Amino acid sequence: MSTAIDELQAIIAELKTELEEQKTSTRNARERIERMSAEVVDSNPYSRLMALQRMNIVKDYERIRDKAVAIVGVGGVGSVTADMLTRCGIGKLILFDYDKVELANMNRLFFTPDQAGLSKVEAAARTLSFINPDVRIETHNYNITTVENFDKFLTTISECGIQKGQPVDLVLSCVDNFEARMAINAACNENNLNWFESGVSENAVSGHIQFIRPGDTACFACAPPLVVAENIDERTLKREGVCAASLPTTMGITAGLLVQNALKYLLNFGEVSDYLGYNALNDFFPKMTLKPNTECDDRFCLQRQKEFRARPQPKEQQEDEVVSNEPVHASNDWGIELVAEDTPVEQQLTNTTNVVTGLRLAYDAPDKVTVKQAENAAAVDAGVPETSLEELMAQMKSM
Amino acid sequence: MSTAIDELQAIIAELKTELEEQKTSTRNARERIERMSAEVVDSNPYSRLMALQRMNIVKDYERIRDKAVAIVGVGGVGSVTADMLTRCGIGKLILFDYDKVELANMNRLFFTPDQAGLSKVEAAARTLSFINPDVRIETHNYNITTVENFDKFLTTISECGIQKGQPVDLVLSCVDNFEARMAINAACNENNLNWFESGVSENAVSGHIQFIRPGDTACFACAPPLVVAENIDERTLKREGVCAASLPTTMGITAGLLVQNALKYLLNFGEVSDYLGYNALNDFFPKMTLKPNTECDDRFCLQRQKEFRARPQPKEQQEDEVVSNEPVHASNDWGIELVAEDTPVEQQLTNTTNVVTGLRLAYDAPDKVTVKQAENAAAVDAGVPETSLEELMAQMKSM
Repeated sequence: MSTAIDELQAIIAELKTELEEQKTSTRNARERIERMSAEVVDSNPYSRLMALQRMNIVKDYERIRDKAVAIVGVGGVGSVTADMLTRCGIGKLILFDYDKVELANMNRLFFTPDQAGLSKVEAAARTLSFINPDVRIETHNYNITTVENFDKFLTTISECGIQKGQPVDLVLSCVDNFEARMAINAACNENNLNWFESGVSENAVSGHIQFIRPGDTACFACAPPLVVAENIDERTLKREGVCAASLPTTMGITAGLLVQNALKYLLNFGEVSDYLGYNALNDFFPKMTLKPNTECDDRFCLQRQKEFRARPQPKEQQEDEVVSNEPVHASNDWGIELVAEDTPVEQQLTNTTNVVTGLRLAYDAPDKVTVKQAENAAAVDAGVPETSLEELMAQMKSM
Repeated sequence: MSTAIDELQAIIAELKTELEEQKTSTRNARERIERMSAEVVDSNPYSRLMALQRMNIVKDYERIRDKAVAIVGVGGVGSVTADMLTRCGIGKLILFDYDKVELANMNRLFFTPDQAGLSKVEAAARTLSFINPDVRIETHNYNITTVENFDKFLTTISECGIQKGQPVDLVLSCVDNFEARMAINAACNENNLNWFESGVSENAVSGHIQFIRPGDTACFACAPPLVVAENIDERTLKREGVCAASLPTTMGITAGLLVQNALKYLLNFGEVSDYLGYNALNDFFPKMTLKPNTECDDRFCLQRQKEFRARPQPKEQQEDEVVSNEPVHASNDWGIELVAEDTPVEQQLTNTTNVVTGLRLAYDAPDKVTVKQAENAAAVDAGVPETSLEELMAQMKSM
């Protein structure tokens, strides 16, 4: 009889070990790493990133550990954005969402079918911590557009940076509706925080990112949102019974362009794009810069514009911020755009706005909007190189 | 005593159940789905894809189930490529790789630290089947460049399509070395299979995709490979002790552009790009088309060129292949490029090749190479809009 008990207890011990292994394998795949190393060994998860220094792309990659980024919206774009930043070894991620994972989200990257029913922030936090335990993940499971939650959001992005009491280094908007974008805009104007807006179209074949530096570039309230020129109205996105199309490609590319530009800004390499569109149907990538509206409805935007104008405008790139002969960084630590001084092409717009080819405003602009084409916005004319400005204007009026 | 045994057996039963649940949750998250449905419910993993039909982007999305795609190389680009196609519900994926997952790969999307040590194809197959059990996954764990394996590769892509004995519908090259690309090129020329080449630079800040249609566009042996103009030499990539830099952004974007163009080709929407580059430093996306070299060293390439010239060239887009007013598909079922007839800008190139701005050949071209700029390649001049052709030529000679 005692042999039987021994045998049963042995079976229990074995099952417990197996269960523990099963659980461990899906929880802690690697130990935390104290410092990033450039050592070229298969077991080093940072070797390919630290190699950016040897390649003369980034001067000090490990600075990424001192950066905190807030991601608002952890859906098709936001989840991939979080995944990329986590694998890059970002110091801290703060995730905001109030939605649940559904099987209907499985046509985008990141979430897996077993996570259906979990909150997006919780499911994301688990996966991200598993992928890279060195990244600090903080989650906020609420809608930032309600009055009470907006205050929590405001406090979080201004005080929960890499050090307690510091603001985050960047806010990334990956939401799918106008109200949430306006809430982020208001919070970033008030806190004087730089942020990137991002979006994909309802028909899944276009996307865009926009870098907003309060006072320096147009805020989200300065002008109607710019989108890639297609039949889109983002306000219909969440309408009852309407199901927007989406593709893992368009969302992954948009997230990639968003994080790439965030990295360029945070680690000071290359040129950060102010507005970059992506039209999947013809692989066309329009670019432009928007100046702030001096009659913007957001009073904090007006205040930031005043502060920006009062700042000394640097005339030359600071040598110590440039890495080798790579293209110079278009912004300094204050987010001041260096090309602005050389490109005085400003135009007063009417409702039939003359935005660059390939882009359009999401709805009719009020008369007071001012749009400025950036120096390198010539890129956007590439699709119709033989067309005059007058012809373009006529074409856009007929859209 | 028998109470003790009963209790132990109850514990065993409980542990077994828990273990089974633990294993199941990481294996079968959802049942297979017989037919794709457009029903707008949270539990439908295909609702957002089928919505592409309602949005007039794709005429018959479910055709994707009849497509088989071979992916060669399941690393930073190939794994994300497989992930995207799996989430899109592709009929069959055939994966080729002979490498193992390492922690050093964790700075790109897809693989997780617990998979370190597993073969890439095995780890990928498990994850992909878990994400979408409707996709048939076939794995080949060998190096396709050895004589024996090349034959296996050739047979597989020509006979293991969606139906036994049929070829695959498309081959996607996501490898990181010249030899493997040449092997894929030889196999696709011999089998007359269309394929996409893809690549990312050693410094992680550029990438490209290239669509190769045997006989119609330049094959990989027709001319030295085109890459985004930076200090790259892909032949050093695998050199002892040298560690290439990589970023999840650049690899994710390259995979996204690759799969997006593969989807446009397979599902017949939008315009498929022949060559699309991505320079992350300035968000520049050069495009061009390369004509085949009439003195190519690959005899099957010469044979395909002869066949291509003998084919009737369609003069007009077939109405039933066009969906609504979206940009027309630049290729028909035979992969014949419709814009070719209208753009007779051909130039005989020397070693100081005049490829479009933003691109360069990976090494010196032999004298016989012919390169043709596509109609919409004007896009590539966007970065230097004021520069004359002569100045550009001079600049490129000095590179």
